[in-house]
Amino acid sequence: MRYELYYWPGIQGRGEFIRLALEEGGADYLDVARGPQKNGGGVSALMRYLEDSDLAHPPFAPPFLKAGKQVIAQTANVLLFLGPRLGLAPANEAGRLWVHQLQLTIADLVDEVHDGHHPISSALYYHEQKLEARRRTADLIKQRLPKYLGYFEGILLRNQRSGQYLAGRSLTYADLSAFQIVEGLRYAFPRAMAKLEKRYPRLVALRDRVAARPRIAAYLASDRRIPFNENGIFRHYPELDA
Amino acid sequence: MRYELYYWPGIQGRGEFIRLALEEGGADYLDVARGPQKNGGGVSALMRYLEDSDLAHPPFAPPFLKAGKQVIAQTANVLLFLGPRLGLAPANEAGRLWVHQLQLTIADLVDEVHDGHHPISSALYYHEQKLEARRRTADLIKQRLPKYLGYFEGILLRNQRSGQYLAGRSLTYADLSAFQIVEGLRYAFPRAMAKLEKRYPRLVALRDRVAARPRIAAYLASDRRIPFNENGIFRHYPELDA
Repeated sequence: MRYELYYWPGIQGRGEFIRLALEEGGADYLDVARGPQKNGGGVSALMRYLEDSDLAHPPFAPPFLKAGKQVIAQTANVLLFLGPRLGLAPANEAGRLWVHQLQLTIADLVDEVHDGHHPISSALYYHEQKLEARRRTADLIKQRLPKYLGYFEGILLRNQRSGQYLAGRSLTYADLSAFQIVEGLRYAFPRAMAKLEKRYPRLVALRDRVAARPRIAAYLASDRRIPFNENGIFRHYPELDA
Repeated sequence: MRYELYYWPGIQGRGEFIRLALEEGGADYLDVARGPQKNGGGVSALMRYLEDSDLAHPPFAPPFLKAGKQVIAQTANVLLFLGPRLGLAPANEAGRLWVHQLQLTIADLVDEVHDGHHPISSALYYHEQKLEARRRTADLIKQRLPKYLGYFEGILLRNQRSGQYLAGRSLTYADLSAFQIVEGLRYAFPRAMAKLEKRYPRLVALRDRVAARPRIAAYLASDRRIPFNENGIFRHYPELDA
């Protein structure tokens, strides 16, 4: 089956967690909105679904995935669907729930990183909430990042007799997402992360292990990987980097 | 099986979405931290799990559910587990993913409501971020609540040929959560909601339908239902209510 991914074409954003799974899984997929508008691509491809009042299961927001006739939204939910199909989730229910739980915790971290630069409103520009962003990001770097990164470090420590991944013996979509978290935080907060990440050697090693996987390495070197920029979740504003 | 729910004992919070499912499903469950400390209850019951370095699948934060030997965290993930077991989720995979997608969208709304009174940091008191809270909540009421509530109203409209619930013909855990959203918003923002909710008659009717279900009605009338208060997600600060 050819999957269709629908996400904002100019950013990694939340769509990137799905892209990484599709790439590592060797899936046949089309990143629809990145195609030319005249061939049904562009942002209007997204809007068609968001505004389609005949669609039984409408997404609240991108990203969403079309798989045959099914339209599935919410990043973690799309990964819940794709995981077993792409060999990126455990076979048993308890294992799948655990990987999903990790993904939902990563989603919470992503929300907090987003709100670092947009603490007041997504509908305002960063410069319209810059003072609040400074205050919120200071807390993010001091309190929240250590809590989240320390949590994932602890998971890797607990799982080290089974393997080198977050859950069980094999790579799952949660490992790919953990890679993206480290990459994103390094981009957004290079100074803070240079200090912080020394405390999380297992998480950094996981990041390296994911980056070295042939399909991921090929993807990262391709133009399918959109560079980080200041429209996405992970934004580099030097004044926010402690 | 007797389920054990672990959540902060003094608030509805995120645990309430699980309590409502357990109550409607007629589950045998213990709300562990609400029990007396000398019998293993209280906040120390939560902390025991959060600090247990031998636990293979540790929660990042409450709520979490113990089902036999399994410990499951993240509210939506717990409901994903409980849904089929309590007769509160569709039988087929596509239906389950759809209900989960709705629940994850409700979880996003819950996060936004929380950040209305805590836009800078969960580690600070409300009065330490009151100015920012005014600004963020004004945006929440003006932009975000209409977007979310309008989305759920639209879902009910699309599904009205099948039934009176959000998904398919039968009640699911997403309906119980939608009830809680309306209740919470009415408590937090009585003036704003009095105006807003007129635009969402199907959602209000769903709230009434859930409230009238015998097990939910009995639960709401019992002392198992903790009253809303200013330590939870939905807080009534008159100065934030437009």
